[in-house]
Amino acid sequence: MSTADEPTSPATADTDRTVRREAGQPRTEGGEEGPETGRDAIIRAARRAFTLKPYAEVTMRGIAAAAGVSPSLIVKRFGTKEALFNTVVDFRPAAAELFSAPRPDLGRHLVLTMVDLRDRLRGDPLLRVVFSLGIEDERTLLRSRFREQVTDRLTAVLTGHDARLRAELIAGQLLGLGATLSLHRPDGATAHTTADRLADLYAPGIQHLVDEN
Amino acid sequence: MSTADEPTSPATADTDRTVRREAGQPRTEGGEEGPETGRDAIIRAARRAFTLKPYAEVTMRGIAAAAGVSPSLIVKRFGTKEALFNTVVDFRPAAAELFSAPRPDLGRHLVLTMVDLRDRLRGDPLLRVVFSLGIEDERTLLRSRFREQVTDRLTAVLTGHDARLRAELIAGQLLGLGATLSLHRPDGATAHTTADRLADLYAPGIQHLVDEN
Repeated sequence: MSTADEPTSPATADTDRTVRREAGQPRTEGGEEGPETGRDAIIRAARRAFTLKPYAEVTMRGIAAAAGVSPSLIVKRFGTKEALFNTVVDFRPAAAELFSAPRPDLGRHLVLTMVDLRDRLRGDPLLRVVFSLGIEDERTLLRSRFREQVTDRLTAVLTGHDARLRAELIAGQLLGLGATLSLHRPDGATAHTTADRLADLYAPGIQHLVDEN
Repeated sequence: MSTADEPTSPATADTDRTVRREAGQPRTEGGEEGPETGRDAIIRAARRAFTLKPYAEVTMRGIAAAAGVSPSLIVKRFGTKEALFNTVVDFRPAAAELFSAPRPDLGRHLVLTMVDLRDRLRGDPLLRVVFSLGIEDERTLLRSRFREQVTDRLTAVLTGHDARLRAELIAGQLLGLGATLSLHRPDGATAHTTADRLADLYAPGIQHLVDEN
């Protein structure tokens, strides 16, 4: 896939773009070429496949066809289907940025970082886990990964009673923020306000959960 | 739609239950039988198809096969594919319940009603709109419907500045609550707490958005 024909579709915004960053490649808004292009195409095709189909129905052959490469190239670069899945679905980079603020500032930091990440990634860093709720077998894998890489990590950041419960609800607020920004874009009110205003409105609810109740 | 066989109607969105129910098996809880069973199976098959596939790829023939009925029966009962889509995706019943509290109590009412609706529907009343974010053409239809039936309606309930923006963010919090309850079930902390405790924790953030800032 070229970069030029991608940027629009947010369906894709929430998948393909995210993908590009998570692929572990240098950002290159300006059209990557060369040996990494195939890799990038494979990762985008894989993420799309794993997002839209049950895990069991995803085949290396199908991903190869969508990426315009040979199945053997995928195996050479990524190994098994499970290894490829593990490569394309990784919430840790986003979690590392999201949870890197002192607790008293965490609510606001989370909102601003979500907005910034979505902007940089041209897609939402977490929302894919919700897309796949409708798909039975992948759901289990993605869910457990999200819980380890996001919820567990956030739980460890919190102190006080019910840290796990509060972490789950904060994760919900982050997913909800991403969902509503995606849903109401490009013509919604959230699309026409500043990140600071979003934080003014949305962060207090998160901070309420960060602080022990 | 009959009232008896589609109590889960708007949303079955959530998933394990949804999937199980939409798989086309007869409902057992209520034990409906008879002529409505086919209708129920059609609605489940249609909801599943519209959730998991691009709108353009959904066919009456495919829904008929999944429901175990003839395509002509679907046309007879529901009309066109568009009419069937309109029937199976309807956020209004959920919105009517969610937004039926005075503003000073709305935050808590929204959380308790979401939990109650999810329980009664055995699925989330709103979350399907997020599932379909990854699917290009259906997304447009679902998005506009969600905005009309949920966001616009909620905007009309609010007063003060930035009502639209606040409504979009409240919608996000509701979607996020549903997402996290689905993601962390059945073994998460949210699955082992009471609706009142959830409301204690989650409602203040919503109420902050309900109240003018």
